[in-house]
Amino acid sequence: MQLEVVLKALRDGRLSLEDAVSALKRPAFEDLGFAKLDFQREQRKGFGEVVYCPGKTCEQLLAIFEAFRGDGRPALGTRCSPEQYAFLQANGLGASYDPVSRLVALRSEPPPAPRGLVAVCTGGTADMPVAEEAAQTSEFFGAIVQRHYDVGVAGIHRLLARIEAIRQANAVIAVAGMEGALGSVLAGLVDVPVVAVPTSVGYGASFEGLAPLLTMLNSCAEGMAVVNIDNGFGAGYLAAQINRLAGRRQ
Amino acid sequence: MQLEVVLKALRDGRLSLEDAVSALKRPAFEDLGFAKLDFQREQRKGFGEVVYCPGKTCEQLLAIFEAFRGDGRPALGTRCSPEQYAFLQANGLGASYDPVSRLVALRSEPPPAPRGLVAVCTGGTADMPVAEEAAQTSEFFGAIVQRHYDVGVAGIHRLLARIEAIRQANAVIAVAGMEGALGSVLAGLVDVPVVAVPTSVGYGASFEGLAPLLTMLNSCAEGMAVVNIDNGFGAGYLAAQINRLAGRRQ
Amino acid sequence: MQLEVVLKALRDGRLSLEDAVSALKRPAFEDLGFAKLDFQREQRKGFGEVVYCPGKTCEQLLAIFEAFRGDGRPALGTRCSPEQYAFLQANGLGASYDPVSRLVALRSEPPPAPRGLVAVCTGGTADMPVAEEAAQTSEFFGAIVQRHYDVGVAGIHRLLARIEAIRQANAVIAVAGMEGALGSVLAGLVDVPVVAVPTSVGYGASFEGLAPLLTMLNSCAEGMAVVNIDNGFGAGYLAAQINRLAGRRQ
Amino acid sequence: MQLEVVLKALRDGRLSLEDAVSALKRPAFEDLGFAKLDFQREQRKGFGEVVYCPGKTCEQLLAIFEAFRGDGRPALGTRCSPEQYAFLQANGLGASYDPVSRLVALRSEPPPAPRGLVAVCTGGTADMPVAEEAAQTSEFFGAIVQRHYDVGVAGIHRLLARIEAIRQANAVIAVAGMEGALGSVLAGLVDVPVVAVPTSVGYGASFEGLAPLLTMLNSCAEGMAVVNIDNGFGAGYLAAQINRLAGRRQ
Amino acid sequence: MQLEVVLKALRDGRLSLEDAVSALKRPAFEDLGFAKLDFQREQRKGFGEVVYCPGKTCEQLLAIFEAFRGDGRPALGTRCSPEQYAFLQANGLGASYDPVSRLVALRSEPPPAPRGLVAVCTGGTADMPVAEEAAQTSEFFGAIVQRHYDVGVAGIHRLLARIEAIRQANAVIAVAGMEGALGSVLAGLVDVPVVAVPTSVGYGASFEGLAPLLTMLNSCAEGMAVVNIDNGFGAGYLAAQINRLAGRRQ
Amino acid sequence: MQLEVVLKALRDGRLSLEDAVSALKRPAFEDLGFAKLDFQREQRKGFGEVVYCPGKTCEQLLAIFEAFRGDGRPALGTRCSPEQYAFLQANGLGASYDPVSRLVALRSEPPPAPRGLVAVCTGGTADMPVAEEAAQTSEFFGAIVQRHYDVGVAGIHRLLARIEAIRQANAVIAVAGMEGALGSVLAGLVDVPVVAVPTSVGYGASFEGLAPLLTMLNSCAEGMAVVNIDNGFGAGYLAAQINRLAGRRQ
Amino acid sequence: MQLEVVLKALRDGRLSLEDAVSALKRPAFEDLGFAKLDFQREQRKGFGEVVYCPGKTCEQLLAIFEAFRGDGRPALGTRCSPEQYAFLQANGLGASYDPVSRLVALRSEPPPAPRGLVAVCTGGTADMPVAEEAAQTSEFFGAIVQRHYDVGVAGIHRLLARIEAIRQANAVIAVAGMEGALGSVLAGLVDVPVVAVPTSVGYGASFEGLAPLLTMLNSCAEGMAVVNIDNGFGAGYLAAQINRLAGRRQ
Amino acid sequence: MQLEVVLKALRDGRLSLEDAVSALKRPAFEDLGFAKLDFQREQRKGFGEVVYCPGKTCEQLLAIFEAFRGDGRPALGTRCSPEQYAFLQANGLGASYDPVSRLVALRSEPPPAPRGLVAVCTGGTADMPVAEEAAQTSEFFGAIVQRHYDVGVAGIHRLLARIEAIRQANAVIAVAGMEGALGSVLAGLVDVPVVAVPTSVGYGASFEGLAPLLTMLNSCAEGMAVVNIDNGFGAGYLAAQINRLAGRRQ
Repeated sequence: MQLEVVLKALRDGRLSLEDAVSALKRPAFEDLGFAKLDFQREQRKGFGEVVYCPGKTCEQLLAIFEAFRGDGRPALGTRCSPEQYAFLQANGLGASYDPVSRLVALRSEPPPAPRGLVAVCTGGTADMPVAEEAAQTSEFFGAIVQRHYDVGVAGIHRLLARIEAIRQANAVIAVAGMEGALGSVLAGLVDVPVVAVPTSVGYGASFEGLAPLLTMLNSCAEGMAVVNIDNGFGAGYLAAQINRLAGRRQ
Repeated sequence: MQLEVVLKALRDGRLSLEDAVSALKRPAFEDLGFAKLDFQREQRKGFGEVVYCPGKTCEQLLAIFEAFRGDGRPALGTRCSPEQYAFLQANGLGASYDPVSRLVALRSEPPPAPRGLVAVCTGGTADMPVAEEAAQTSEFFGAIVQRHYDVGVAGIHRLLARIEAIRQANAVIAVAGMEGALGSVLAGLVDVPVVAVPTSVGYGASFEGLAPLLTMLNSCAEGMAVVNIDNGFGAGYLAAQINRLAGRRQ
Repeated sequence: MQLEVVLKALRDGRLSLEDAVSALKRPAFEDLGFAKLDFQREQRKGFGEVVYCPGKTCEQLLAIFEAFRGDGRPALGTRCSPEQYAFLQANGLGASYDPVSRLVALRSEPPPAPRGLVAVCTGGTADMPVAEEAAQTSEFFGAIVQRHYDVGVAGIHRLLARIEAIRQANAVIAVAGMEGALGSVLAGLVDVPVVAVPTSVGYGASFEGLAPLLTMLNSCAEGMAVVNIDNGFGAGYLAAQINRLAGRRQ
Repeated sequence: MQLEVVLKALRDGRLSLEDAVSALKRPAFEDLGFAKLDFQREQRKGFGEVVYCPGKTCEQLLAIFEAFRGDGRPALGTRCSPEQYAFLQANGLGASYDPVSRLVALRSEPPPAPRGLVAVCTGGTADMPVAEEAAQTSEFFGAIVQRHYDVGVAGIHRLLARIEAIRQANAVIAVAGMEGALGSVLAGLVDVPVVAVPTSVGYGASFEGLAPLLTMLNSCAEGMAVVNIDNGFGAGYLAAQINRLAGRRQ
Repeated sequence: MQLEVVLKALRDGRLSLEDAVSALKRPAFEDLGFAKLDFQREQRKGFGEVVYCPGKTCEQLLAIFEAFRGDGRPALGTRCSPEQYAFLQANGLGASYDPVSRLVALRSEPPPAPRGLVAVCTGGTADMPVAEEAAQTSEFFGAIVQRHYDVGVAGIHRLLARIEAIRQANAVIAVAGMEGALGSVLAGLVDVPVVAVPTSVGYGASFEGLAPLLTMLNSCAEGMAVVNIDNGFGAGYLAAQINRLAGRRQ
Repeated sequence: MQLEVVLKALRDGRLSLEDAVSALKRPAFEDLGFAKLDFQREQRKGFGEVVYCPGKTCEQLLAIFEAFRGDGRPALGTRCSPEQYAFLQANGLGASYDPVSRLVALRSEPPPAPRGLVAVCTGGTADMPVAEEAAQTSEFFGAIVQRHYDVGVAGIHRLLARIEAIRQANAVIAVAGMEGALGSVLAGLVDVPVVAVPTSVGYGASFEGLAPLLTMLNSCAEGMAVVNIDNGFGAGYLAAQINRLAGRRQ
Repeated sequence: MQLEVVLKALRDGRLSLEDAVSALKRPAFEDLGFAKLDFQREQRKGFGEVVYCPGKTCEQLLAIFEAFRGDGRPALGTRCSPEQYAFLQANGLGASYDPVSRLVALRSEPPPAPRGLVAVCTGGTADMPVAEEAAQTSEFFGAIVQRHYDVGVAGIHRLLARIEAIRQANAVIAVAGMEGALGSVLAGLVDVPVVAVPTSVGYGASFEGLAPLLTMLNSCAEGMAVVNIDNGFGAGYLAAQINRLAGRRQ
Repeated sequence: MQLEVVLKALRDGRLSLEDAVSALKRPAFEDLGFAKLDFQREQRKGFGEVVYCPGKTCEQLLAIFEAFRGDGRPALGTRCSPEQYAFLQANGLGASYDPVSRLVALRSEPPPAPRGLVAVCTGGTADMPVAEEAAQTSEFFGAIVQRHYDVGVAGIHRLLARIEAIRQANAVIAVAGMEGALGSVLAGLVDVPVVAVPTSVGYGASFEGLAPLLTMLNSCAEGMAVVNIDNGFGAGYLAAQINRLAGRRQ
């Protein structure tokens, strides 16, 4: 453990008092004033840094990404508007951007080969932006992703036709708006965790995604948990964690 | 039409002025003070009288049912407590009672033979009291009823094994709590109206049945409508109406 | 039944193993990647395909409709924006469009003569777009529709003046915002199913249609069920189903 | 005005400084510590004191009522439990009590003859406790009250048969649970204020009276306002005020 | 009564059968198809016609107002947008318009002299549009109106300074957003009905006016009732009714 | 794959037509009428059967558990009341019961040795019943479980003192009521999935667990998903799945 | 700072390596397994320990309080049921208990003399239990408390008569249910912080205290903040903190 | 006291009757018609006037600020739009404006030197506009403010690194959206009041800030109270009051 190492070095005279104090107090983040960049997250969480873009000015975003780039570490930005991305590019950031998922990805070197499998399913075509955010997040964090879109429960045979392929995955992401029943049906058919993402697709008594959120929370199928409405990123991250875990001890 | 008949009789001297006035103003109900009994409902709605029992005193209930019995017409009481029923029986009403559905049924003569078919499905075993209220209501109003209980979406094969039988019905009632997805899956598989009944079975974010209610309202399957939480009676009545309609023009 | 036919043919050598496997696994839909088109719905549900347009790109919509046109089958698109429709037409789809109901209808051959009757009633003039979506949906699926607009309960004589005509229908659709009491009054006066559609017409404590939705769910009149807020399509489809059922056994 | 009278008397030597200070600072209430009794309310509001009984101990209630009795003024207690009333009586208060409305009424002398007319209508029989609270409150504050119970909108003819009598009132109270549409229909038929009282009668999506509350707030009929769920007292008080106002300038 | 008069004339030969039928069935409204104009409302309700403008097309509004103008009767339009009014004027309707209250008023002859008094109070300056809708509605229906704006409870002395003037009114309208406590304080200080109007002024946990709505419904002051959020019209109408009632028997 | 195996056997004469039909149609569940027991779940989901006890009669529960026992397979009953368990035992079921977690566990043979690690943390002592349901569920399905109770965020040092131990787990369960912030802090400190369980511990604006539910859904920490309020079982099941997955490929 | 002191002692040989490690890792709490007692809270927060009693078994509570008693430090238990307190006393804990506020207080030596002033006001008599919890909490943590009960806004003169006394306090606690307007009026009249406590006193649209909670959050008076519904303890603690702060620098 | 002074002067002939009446009735505010300016607030509340800008016309705002300027007193305007400020400046008001916090500040003379310390912390960068409103409000009312931004609980070490500095403040403001857990963690670590501000930063089940609002209300940490969503002003004002109080008795 780090603490004992430092204390031994101090006792043995290999470290000055000042350096010992400093080592035990070294900040685990860089302070930009408006933001505290978390440079130990990769160590602590096992994955790189993630930036939530809404509510940040273009200048703030640029400074954050440049700090990561300067450190040579990958970073993923979520819900990045086209305007924000245009500013980043105009200032030479050199990141990639997908307008459907609104993800901006920064890498200084090629990622390792993906492995393991995550399945991303949607109830309808309109759920695609959220599903892509999930799928590309899982890919950014090292998973192979298979997409199964428009397999909602109102035409259950579409899902049943795909179920064998879905069963190969280490984690399944179920993205659905309206009644949001896809997760329950999936969780009843597979033996791996299902991460359910309610979407705001719908109208009226959907109440901006409240309906599928409640549906998913009340599922009577086992092996499912839920993330926030439209939170494709959160589902993709969690699925990538589970996928990595499945492979870690191989 | 009634109006012209009366006016012609008046003009032709076959009816006195007083009788004409009276005929055009005759009350369509009996007034017990605390209740106005609707003696034209059978003509107007095609089905007999229904009494919502909660909030009525035992004495009020007895007076209401006795008025119907005196008129020789059938009546159905909903959500009747065992205490209310015991009082009715102790006072010689002569009605039947089912403690699961809490329905009390009064008939002075045997009902006509049932016909047509209504299918009542539930997601789980705990939905049975609501389902029985639906089923027995449909039966009271002339339908043959087939029950398919515990066929919820978390084990979709249980429903698929029954689907051919369910497809024979003129109307399908889907009773489900928790995530309430049964209705959507059913409506995607049959070509007749599905009446969905959310139940308060569940806990936590079910919010006393709000979750399945919203699920059912947001269904992306066509051909479904929803009644109030735990309103098995309403679903059974509507299904019986549809069933009668299917048979009316035979 | 299909299964035995295939198995017998296999046993008798009239079918190869590969063909038997294929026959038992044949997809019931065409896979466009972003959408799975349900080519058996007409058989399974009795009505043609329906497309929910919001959230789909113009290119996706066009591909979906062209697949149906190529198959010679009718299709109805709901909540189609003028921009989406303009794109479809600019690409030669040849479908009709109603800007009030926002329905786009595709037919390769003239529909059969309508029959049966559905009555569509509204509480106010502002409910017309939802009512037209209901009415035109019922018409698309074969019903004759009679419109009774602006007959809300605040001037109950307007409704009473129309009630005889409304009673001729096989199903009644009640479209109302604000307090949404139209459905209850109607259900108390007719002997056929009433499909109630709450609308988001109103302000303040209407909470975007929550108020009439709750009103309709809590109706103490029998023979009514409810669809989602502003879901004219759902009501029109269900009423057409009931109307067809009433006529099916003639 | 009081202020000038006191100042003149002081200036003219008819009043000492201490008495002037005291007169301008005299408390308008008696302080029991746990309660401040409002002895000017009858002057300020025109009606006597009202006591909300829930949450008060029996001893507190007794002290409050005895203070009023000692002062010879009438007082009305609302939502008084049978246990609370029994304690009051056991201690010799000498007030009357109605177990349906849960009102306890204290009078030291006979009230003046009632005048004017308030009509109290209910949707159903189960609304009677709230309606009686309204009716007896109006009576306590001087109105003649006519009751029209069980005239809900699901059987609209029951209401229409009574409408001429209802139109004679100076104010109409509409008490209804479930869908709560009675107020709208009444307000469309009379030319005096309608005070609507939603009740918690119902179940499921009634959400303890939220449904009729929203219905009544969203009424498209003019001339109606709403009080809290089950607040029969509030409606009865307001109706009595309007009734008094109608008669005040005779 | 009308019914007997017609019947007698028929019996006595002074009226043909057809005319008798027609007289008893004469429509009480003009049917424009999209709207049923209520030509008996002035008789039935005592006030002229009111038109809710949102959701109606300009052409529909013009037709409605022209029908009233043709009949020589006054009409008031609520929540009329500047665009709608511009269209009406461009087509020569000849109505007046106030952009703050968004009321459009049509009169063919000068109104009778106003009488009685209504007081309109607001918590803050931002509540003025709703308050003006209330005030001008009361004026349209015959009341003299006194405005007391920006007298909210956070500076209670501002209200106390005005209270004597407010006490002269036959009805008091309390318009307030945010915490909405103005109504309670007013109702505790006056002896006439207080009509409370919650407004959507505020942010965050105001939830678009839900907060003051609940405040007002839960008032522990007697003699107050509530209308919908931002419903200045409803309050003005009700206050005018009460004001008229106070004067009717003079 | 099963299908081809059957078809080959039929083609090759090793299987009769009847047996082939039967094999392809064999029911995957036993039908008790009120319940359909899912005998393939262990194969399909990898874990044994789970029974939700509320709403089932004692007789129904006994029949369900006896069917599983007769089949020699393990079963877990959730939310079993002491009364239900007493009935089961009185009828000789031979299952174990924990009154804190309300789990009833049925096993005919000793379970395999547990492996892998799940950490269960709570914000407070009052969350223990839910936490025990989670912990014992994970144990039933094969995991070793470490408990860290009363480490809520209001005394953050208590959690930090435990964090190294928690980091050894394959999955972390965070059980918290009131503000429910435990999950966010944990997810920021570990690199494995956090399954968050909001509890109904609290009062007032907790709204029966809604507050911690929303907190957890809105977490800005990555790698967390949420189950229903008080759903310790669901979290324990999911954590056991993740734990198994982590070990599957060892 | 502690860290440097330990490191210097280690460098200078006055502390062994093991002791240095131990000193830097010493637990700040005692671990009872089901609870982690926070023995540094008095240092960190300046006040003693607080125990939330609901959901804890009698045995757990006793162990927690005995640990504090053994350490000679004061402790306050909130929402303690009479049954819990009886158990504590039966086991010789020697703490005091107030059944109105449900507070149990443990002290091994007399508290220091109180100083500074906190004013506790209520809207009505029924708010007393919550107010007493606030008042006695402030007293436990060293404040002098003055009570002003039943001074709600419906009789504003009762509050105005007390305002000079209230203005002497360092902090004001406003406890109110129903419409909860007391806080706003108070905050407009004093120049010190007002801590507002909504209570669940009320019915119907109070929604268990939601109404006064929203009222208080939306106050347009400055200098007020809000705690949870019925959270008298939280308000009393905060007011005691402010009171101490006002006195700290004397 | 003022009252006795006036009365003595009157008695002693040093004051005329008219002047005595006038002195006891002098208005405490200036009446602009649409607004009542509160010229005694500085005396009563200890701080200058505050103007809520939304919903006021530019002309109204200008008149209000000019009245304060004419009186030589400072004033702070909140939520002032850039358009409103531009109008004020174009008309020569001479106030300062910060576009992030949207505060407009008017001062005729330099403020006294700030003293005491308030700490403003945020969970994320996107909370900055609300945090700046809080910080600048505290500064306007005399406090020194230290900002600690982006120290949310998902990276708890960022907060721990700052905690010693934060502990120096007299009051701490915790600004956080999403899960809003910052307040609880802070309140567990400091011994002064924490004022929590939920923000609308987030999406989905944040429900416009409802989620962090509930989190903060349900905190199990002592010494915290909550203001409205996004109400940075309210928190800054309250913190300034506490800060002043801490310094008042120095």
